[in-house]
Amino acid sequence: MTVNIKRLNASQNDFDSQLATLLAWDDSVDHQVNESVRHILHQVKTRGDEAILEFTEKFDRLNVDSVAELEMSQNRLQQALRAIPEDQRVALEQAADRVRDYHERQNQKSWQYQDEDGTVLGQKVTPLDRAGLYVPGGKAAYPSSVLMNAIPAKVAGVGEVIMVVPTPDGVVNDLVLAAAAIAGVDRVFTVGGAQAVGALAYGTETIPAVDKIVGPGNIFVATAKREVFGTVGIDMIAGPSEILVICDGKTDPDWIAMDLFSQAEHDEQAQSILISPDADFLDAVEASINKLLPTMERADIIRTSMTDRAALIQVTDLSEAAKVSNRIAPEHLELSVEAPEALLDEIRHAGAIFMGRYTAEALGDYCAGPNHVLPTSGTARFSSPLGVYDFQKRSSIIGFSAKGADRMGRVASVLARGEGLTAHARSAEYRIQNDE
Amino acid sequence: MTVNIKRLNASQNDFDSQLATLLAWDDSVDHQVNESVRHILHQVKTRGDEAILEFTEKFDRLNVDSVAELEMSQNRLQQALRAIPEDQRVALEQAADRVRDYHERQNQKSWQYQDEDGTVLGQKVTPLDRAGLYVPGGKAAYPSSVLMNAIPAKVAGVGEVIMVVPTPDGVVNDLVLAAAAIAGVDRVFTVGGAQAVGALAYGTETIPAVDKIVGPGNIFVATAKREVFGTVGIDMIAGPSEILVICDGKTDPDWIAMDLFSQAEHDEQAQSILISPDADFLDAVEASINKLLPTMERADIIRTSMTDRAALIQVTDLSEAAKVSNRIAPEHLELSVEAPEALLDEIRHAGAIFMGRYTAEALGDYCAGPNHVLPTSGTARFSSPLGVYDFQKRSSIIGFSAKGADRMGRVASVLARGEGLTAHARSAEYRIQNDE
Repeated sequence: MTVNIKRLNASQNDFDSQLATLLAWDDSVDHQVNESVRHILHQVKTRGDEAILEFTEKFDRLNVDSVAELEMSQNRLQQALRAIPEDQRVALEQAADRVRDYHERQNQKSWQYQDEDGTVLGQKVTPLDRAGLYVPGGKAAYPSSVLMNAIPAKVAGVGEVIMVVPTPDGVVNDLVLAAAAIAGVDRVFTVGGAQAVGALAYGTETIPAVDKIVGPGNIFVATAKREVFGTVGIDMIAGPSEILVICDGKTDPDWIAMDLFSQAEHDEQAQSILISPDADFLDAVEASINKLLPTMERADIIRTSMTDRAALIQVTDLSEAAKVSNRIAPEHLELSVEAPEALLDEIRHAGAIFMGRYTAEALGDYCAGPNHVLPTSGTARFSSPLGVYDFQKRSSIIGFSAKGADRMGRVASVLARGEGLTAHARSAEYRIQNDE
Repeated sequence: MTVNIKRLNASQNDFDSQLATLLAWDDSVDHQVNESVRHILHQVKTRGDEAILEFTEKFDRLNVDSVAELEMSQNRLQQALRAIPEDQRVALEQAADRVRDYHERQNQKSWQYQDEDGTVLGQKVTPLDRAGLYVPGGKAAYPSSVLMNAIPAKVAGVGEVIMVVPTPDGVVNDLVLAAAAIAGVDRVFTVGGAQAVGALAYGTETIPAVDKIVGPGNIFVATAKREVFGTVGIDMIAGPSEILVICDGKTDPDWIAMDLFSQAEHDEQAQSILISPDADFLDAVEASINKLLPTMERADIIRTSMTDRAALIQVTDLSEAAKVSNRIAPEHLELSVEAPEALLDEIRHAGAIFMGRYTAEALGDYCAGPNHVLPTSGTARFSSPLGVYDFQKRSSIIGFSAKGADRMGRVASVLARGEGLTAHARSAEYRIQNDE
């Protein structure tokens, strides 16, 4: 059963509308989910621990007497770290080191300067007091995700990182706990779903309220995060994952096919797109896809994803490829070409850019250093990878000298009166013509 | 008629709950507004210009034949700049210069580094292609707001800044247009409300889609922004404005009263709070409030705001004042004390911090340099003033050498297999043990 992958050609008249159809993604709200999430959040907000216990029994079939029993000790995390295979522990530690090293370069410093009047202006950068990290349970429990979400928070100087992870029927994922130990997560509660988001947003008797909630989750978790936004900060609401590969036709087609698969295996909605000026190469990659697909463990997911959402796009040249890429603003962009640096200048929007034939996206997903939490569905047009900056905020500093207040008070007075705000004007005018 | 202002004392047992009550702000969604906004957005999304014309006729009573007629030319903006009084033009220009100078220091640079394998890692910073700026019409039309929203976008290097501003019954505010000219706004459309937000988010035949929408607006505009978030970026959804003054009791009580008024005059929901260790000073400020209130042009608004939402809080010392301030995470924080630098270290959360007795908040609102668009309702715990960084985004750069891909591919392989993602593993493994 061969996979039929869509073919598009950028020089066709209707290419723009074909591309729009390919990229269309329905993120409309499910009202039943919404209702259910609002109910859960309201219960957690008003009844605290009691509600957490009820929902955890209902959804995860865990029957305990207190939320304190749902907390995992640091000893338990260390135990998980000792329990996992040596090669996995070493790999997690190597990945964590590289992620930490990269993110330290994102640290922002406070700054101040003085103008000629002696007036001080500046920007003070401070970390959040507390961050909450949602980690999915079950099949989609990814230790790499724990590293990618927790390490930037710790590098930013967040006082306390609190992780929540569901353990349905008490099933614990030691790799996830080991990653939490390596990343330096401060506290772990085995609570999941909208109830965990509610606990982090509002706080309960046992689970402290945080200032921002990050991390992936299912539709209930995503809806809950959207709902509590404003009470706390949230990271992005992610759509399905995507990869866009631009190839000059000189990379091994098997490599490219596997790179496309690495995105497609995430889920049926994941999107894999290849752009090349070389029509024969597109054929060769399609042949590789059909050759390799039967050998894949997640062949069914990959087949559905490739059939429904993948595309091979022919362009005139690499410059046109860059233009199409900018239209898409992909989450992951592989520049599998001879001179990626030259092409980089033409790329305006992408979550992460993988330069050259050796840079498989999978390397970035785990251990290159940069974050794997990236803007999806074209949101790279206006948003950024998760980073240290997501766990810091800025305060403006303004310190007027008497002389500066005199001089700028006159300007403020004119503008405030122009806007009809006379208390503003008079407040500024009090500081004018002082006799110091 | 004296104003009765709430008095709180931080050493009272129930202070925490009293403070929580004082700060409580109902931002629950109005379902009728929601319905109406969704309808407008859907019409604009599906019918474009035609819908814009209909809604503009309905809400602003402007009857034109095409959306092109709703665009204001650069000539018209320059005409406004010539039409306003000289002192206002000069004040706007001085304010714009200072705002530009401050914001240029927020510009972020791309960076790259190479590790020992020759692997390149970095972060590429790029501006948004297009930003949309909503400016309210009528009474709340503030030229300072045009400067504060447009200048950071231009400093960030945004390609095109598109302003929308309603002109109900054709009434145009020349100060606002003059500010647009000074700030370098690229295009102006006299469209407002949810229909303007829809036009900026989805684009119409005449109004181009943008990547991010910023700027204040009424409940319809705020609801529409929340609704289109994801399709485009948005700035914060602002709550009522607030000021917190910490005073050691040595500032002229009239100054402090007027500083509190400058917040209270915005609207009835605005919040003004004074914290001092000096009970007599709290009395003196209350006396000043009652003395000055009858002299204020917006006395009714101020009276309601001060009665409903203001408070005078007594603390033991300035350190306790800082603690209470961190609980509040105020939008504006005045440190009206002898040694503001010493207190600054204890301040963890605030939108903007005004240092010393001469630094009236009003100076910051207009012309100090830092932005006056600030996080409200305690969101300074996790968010920042509007800045150049809001109009830029980052892309991670990853470029593995053959040697680096070999080394890190092994790590990725172990982790990917640990997560059951074998396409990821095989994609990395293709790059291992190459013979180059």
